[in-house]
Amino acid sequence: MTHLSWTQDVILDHGTCERAFAIEHDGHTIPGVLWTSSAATGPQPLVLMGHGGSGHKRNERMLMLGHMFTRDYGWCAAAIDGPVHGGRGPVEDANHPAYRAMWQRQDVVHSMIEDWRATLDALSQLAEVDGSRVGYWGVSMGTMFGLPYVASEPRIRAAVLGKAGMSGPSVVRSGIDRHFAIFAPKVLVPVLFVMQWDDERFERSGQLELFDLLGSPDKRLHAYPGLHIDNGPEAFEVQAAFLKRYV
Amino acid sequence: MTHLSWTQDVILDHGTCERAFAIEHDGHTIPGVLWTSSAATGPQPLVLMGHGGSGHKRNERMLMLGHMFTRDYGWCAAAIDGPVHGGRGPVEDANHPAYRAMWQRQDVVHSMIEDWRATLDALSQLAEVDGSRVGYWGVSMGTMFGLPYVASEPRIRAAVLGKAGMSGPSVVRSGIDRHFAIFAPKVLVPVLFVMQWDDERFERSGQLELFDLLGSPDKRLHAYPGLHIDNGPEAFEVQAAFLKRYV
Repeated sequence: MTHLSWTQDVILDHGTCERAFAIEHDGHTIPGVLWTSSAATGPQPLVLMGHGGSGHKRNERMLMLGHMFTRDYGWCAAAIDGPVHGGRGPVEDANHPAYRAMWQRQDVVHSMIEDWRATLDALSQLAEVDGSRVGYWGVSMGTMFGLPYVASEPRIRAAVLGKAGMSGPSVVRSGIDRHFAIFAPKVLVPVLFVMQWDDERFERSGQLELFDLLGSPDKRLHAYPGLHIDNGPEAFEVQAAFLKRYV
Repeated sequence: MTHLSWTQDVILDHGTCERAFAIEHDGHTIPGVLWTSSAATGPQPLVLMGHGGSGHKRNERMLMLGHMFTRDYGWCAAAIDGPVHGGRGPVEDANHPAYRAMWQRQDVVHSMIEDWRATLDALSQLAEVDGSRVGYWGVSMGTMFGLPYVASEPRIRAAVLGKAGMSGPSVVRSGIDRHFAIFAPKVLVPVLFVMQWDDERFERSGQLELFDLLGSPDKRLHAYPGLHIDNGPEAFEVQAAFLKRYV
């Protein structure tokens, strides 16, 4: 059974309507946020957004993207907390022992796939959401969980992934390469894979290898100079335009 | 002395005005085409476009881009024939002996830099052209000549380059890597470098190496699956939007 409830007051900001929700699923709670456009008439496409390691459903990046999709496109966007992140605490720093422990859990990737699936089940029931037009956006940890989800979810029509790969310190810590090896060939929808050319957490060669592994015949790689945390000046705008084209 | 003359009747097509020109410069003639928007009021930014090997100033790609820049942005665009191409004949096929012979000329890159410079001198005098906002678009041979030009021309504000690199059969034939090694570090303006992931003429590793060599602090790499001749579905649209952002 999956049940969605609204957990906080609506926040209205420049035509964007933000609502916090909680989904009860399979005995646990998934905390999330939904952004919709106050100006939209009728159901709109939905972008599911996975935050990065040590972030949460309502961090600066999620807020920026949530507002961008609603304001620029009239679309809906939603984010949920990753395991041991945000409302599922206690990680606020990727050096927290609970972060490393999370990746030791055998079922953590499968469990997050199930959480996203339950979230999409619930959000698709809303009048604001067109459940037939759904995209995914998530880099770094948003790809570590999101790539396996996109590979497993036939309702996702296109995905922005990246800042992740098959080698580097973050791979050693997480063991995510085993999951990528299984799931990347099963990703078949159009993908924009973004990477930072000088990423210190995921090696360049391992990111190119992950791009190669993606099963999608329609994929593109966008690389910008800089470290893991940096972003190209037009990166988000171009990524949104990619989703607009394919979702 | 540089002198521009119009050589053919104007072609009007869906709001795009196309005019063939010839520039007399330093004892030889540079044949070119200028596209402008019939709807434009006042001087507009200009995109200089370098065609690929065996192409010419008015081939399908140049026409498509010329119309795109005028129609979508109201901008001006111009192309000139490369040495031994188009109106400077006889190459219509990269296997033509004159193509190989062209690359044996010690001065061929320098000569094309001078031709572009003379072209920009002449076009900047036109009322339709804003000579303070100029971009460059050219891949493959359009980069083999264009990258050295962009590196040498302070009036270029941003460039789309790519489908070229430091190794592969087309490098063996042309020896262009010597020029890239000199000029790539001198390119300092924003660059979008586009490459085909499975390019059979320029090796993947050599293209990544050329991207690395570019001196621009603001650069991005866009890679799409496919051979040298293929293009990503949204590639040209994204490249135009890049120039719109930076020129």
